[in-house]
Amino acid sequence: MPLKNTNIVSAGQTKFGKLEGISLREMFADAVDLATVDAGIPKEDIQAAFIGTFIPEMLVHQGHTAPLLLDFAGMRGLPATRHEAACASGATALRAAVMAIESGMYDTVLVAGAEKMTSVSTNRATEALAAAADDKFESGVGLTFPGVFGIAAVAHMRKYGTTEEDLARVAVKAHKNASTNPLAQFQKEITLEKAMMPRYIAWPLKLFDCSPISDGAAALVLTSNEKAKKYTDTPVKIPAIGQASASMNLCDRHDLTSFEASVAAGQQAYKMAGMSPSDMDLAVVHDCFTIAEIIATEDLGFFEPGKGAKAVEDGVTALDGDLPINPMGGLKAVGHPVGATGVKQATVIYKELIGEAGKNQVANHDVGMMHNFGGTGATSVVTIMRRADA
Amino acid sequence: MPLKNTNIVSAGQTKFGKLEGISLREMFADAVDLATVDAGIPKEDIQAAFIGTFIPEMLVHQGHTAPLLLDFAGMRGLPATRHEAACASGATALRAAVMAIESGMYDTVLVAGAEKMTSVSTNRATEALAAAADDKFESGVGLTFPGVFGIAAVAHMRKYGTTEEDLARVAVKAHKNASTNPLAQFQKEITLEKAMMPRYIAWPLKLFDCSPISDGAAALVLTSNEKAKKYTDTPVKIPAIGQASASMNLCDRHDLTSFEASVAAGQQAYKMAGMSPSDMDLAVVHDCFTIAEIIATEDLGFFEPGKGAKAVEDGVTALDGDLPINPMGGLKAVGHPVGATGVKQATVIYKELIGEAGKNQVANHDVGMMHNFGGTGATSVVTIMRRADA
Repeated sequence: MPLKNTNIVSAGQTKFGKLEGISLREMFADAVDLATVDAGIPKEDIQAAFIGTFIPEMLVHQGHTAPLLLDFAGMRGLPATRHEAACASGATALRAAVMAIESGMYDTVLVAGAEKMTSVSTNRATEALAAAADDKFESGVGLTFPGVFGIAAVAHMRKYGTTEEDLARVAVKAHKNASTNPLAQFQKEITLEKAMMPRYIAWPLKLFDCSPISDGAAALVLTSNEKAKKYTDTPVKIPAIGQASASMNLCDRHDLTSFEASVAAGQQAYKMAGMSPSDMDLAVVHDCFTIAEIIATEDLGFFEPGKGAKAVEDGVTALDGDLPINPMGGLKAVGHPVGATGVKQATVIYKELIGEAGKNQVANHDVGMMHNFGGTGATSVVTIMRRADA
Repeated sequence: MPLKNTNIVSAGQTKFGKLEGISLREMFADAVDLATVDAGIPKEDIQAAFIGTFIPEMLVHQGHTAPLLLDFAGMRGLPATRHEAACASGATALRAAVMAIESGMYDTVLVAGAEKMTSVSTNRATEALAAAADDKFESGVGLTFPGVFGIAAVAHMRKYGTTEEDLARVAVKAHKNASTNPLAQFQKEITLEKAMMPRYIAWPLKLFDCSPISDGAAALVLTSNEKAKKYTDTPVKIPAIGQASASMNLCDRHDLTSFEASVAAGQQAYKMAGMSPSDMDLAVVHDCFTIAEIIATEDLGFFEPGKGAKAVEDGVTALDGDLPINPMGGLKAVGHPVGATGVKQATVIYKELIGEAGKNQVANHDVGMMHNFGGTGATSVVTIMRRADA
């Protein structure tokens, strides 16, 4: 049964990138302002907050972030909970907010995510990110995330003949889309030659196959049907949200060319919404690495397994293609402040669906899908959004 | 309006203490087994999991704990989210689970919490715990948690004449109750003289005013009305759960003798349940320090401000008193593995309400309250539980 009562009525995102001199709490407050007062929604109307942060403990020595961030955003006193699921932290906060509204306990709630990552060295950030993998069997023995996704890329290449050029084309598309996104960390197009520069991070993944280390925050306001029309003429409904987990260890997986939690979460979402992949006008998928985008588009049923790369090459997933994927530039080029990412992805779908995506507007925009996953796919959350009047 | 559909149908807790040779994932799995298979609830019936851990990133270098722990507990694949609110992490996981059931999205869910704290030195654990306070204005300048609660104790002494003996009596009661609790970290009674030993941790708080560093895990199964009778003849309903936040900084508080988030969360819970303090037969409150128990019993309306210590002295809060508080021994003597605490508190109320608290059974046990707070009270969650047949 589709969810009945949850609507997104505003969304905002700070600039992503190296935000020098801007602290975690400051960027969080900026994003909240964008989604509330700047969108005509008084902060007094918000009843509860659901916040995604991944690892502020190691990046800014700060736990218990929910009340702290909410206070700094001028909303002291509200119930505020922090949700952590590595790179899927934002989407797990979104899911909790959806349940809060569907339960009838709250009408109008804030969903927000933030991460300050450039506060520490790149090595330290890499160590912090590694906490998203299994410390006993993976990170503790030296496997980093580029390594993990390098393994997935090799498996995909071996099974389906995917090439390094195929991966590079995902990066070229991401940078092209981000070139017209003023909030993106990288706003320059790159050529295929540049993307193919042999600066290997973890073979076969090269520099341009990897999303960057970023600072940033994003926020949404969700409300019930009854209240939605008070805030906007164009609410976006959330008819379905699916979530699944998998083993933390790659060594416990049956297949390294697909992430089983993404497949399961996608199936849950389609079933809940009564929809199929062909109903989607666009999708935002978790492209922490180029190979992750290709695999996600296969896991979500947009393309047959092994056909994701071809779809990129054929332009199907381009901004003007039949199924635009990551139309604003994705994690790859917009940036990946981990706790913010899932919430930022929702802002992209929201802006596209209501026709306010500027130069990155897609042609058809009734229904969109958002895919946010964490770690090596041990958590995956898939959300379907639909313009209320569509 | 009271919540209608949420029932606790099982609860389990591991031994708390220094659990040598038992890892975070192992103790988590033990608690889950207690609340599922050992309680006659097949793991296959569980549809989603809500998990509290405070700071495994710094204690065992492990983030993204939800899918990892769930996998190790034999439930790979289910949606699993980690909730963090410092010492209130467990209760925020419980609240998310309540909303999941009330939303109709799930029937039967797992709530679990765990923390492995003795894996690091006491100094390192203290540093990790400090992440629950504001890094900019408190922990970063040297304020530790014993220091924070020492400040609260001084304020309470100055305003109400509370004495060090008053605090010590809370410790004596906690150890007395824990002496018959086989799962407690400390199972020895102490005399008032011993509690008054001048081993100051942060004046006026002495060694026996402080809860210990502990390992441990706890778990609950929650289900809908329709499913509850399948599992037990004595479900415990959750008619209300309140949550509020406050400033992280003590310097932003109006009053150091009361925690405003506890007052607000309590008021929300009473209003939602349509009950008042006099309806409670027993309560479990967050006694991370002895002064915290005294303040909590005032904040929740059981006693007038400044009268909490007198109630302890008069035996009102003893196991055989009119309003038993922390009948199994509290954080103070049972232990305080942070992420487990809120879930463990719920297991205490559950066991007491269904009459299975053994030597620690209270006389009247229709309705109980649970108070779990985080940091210096920046998050507070108050839950009311009622035996379904009461």
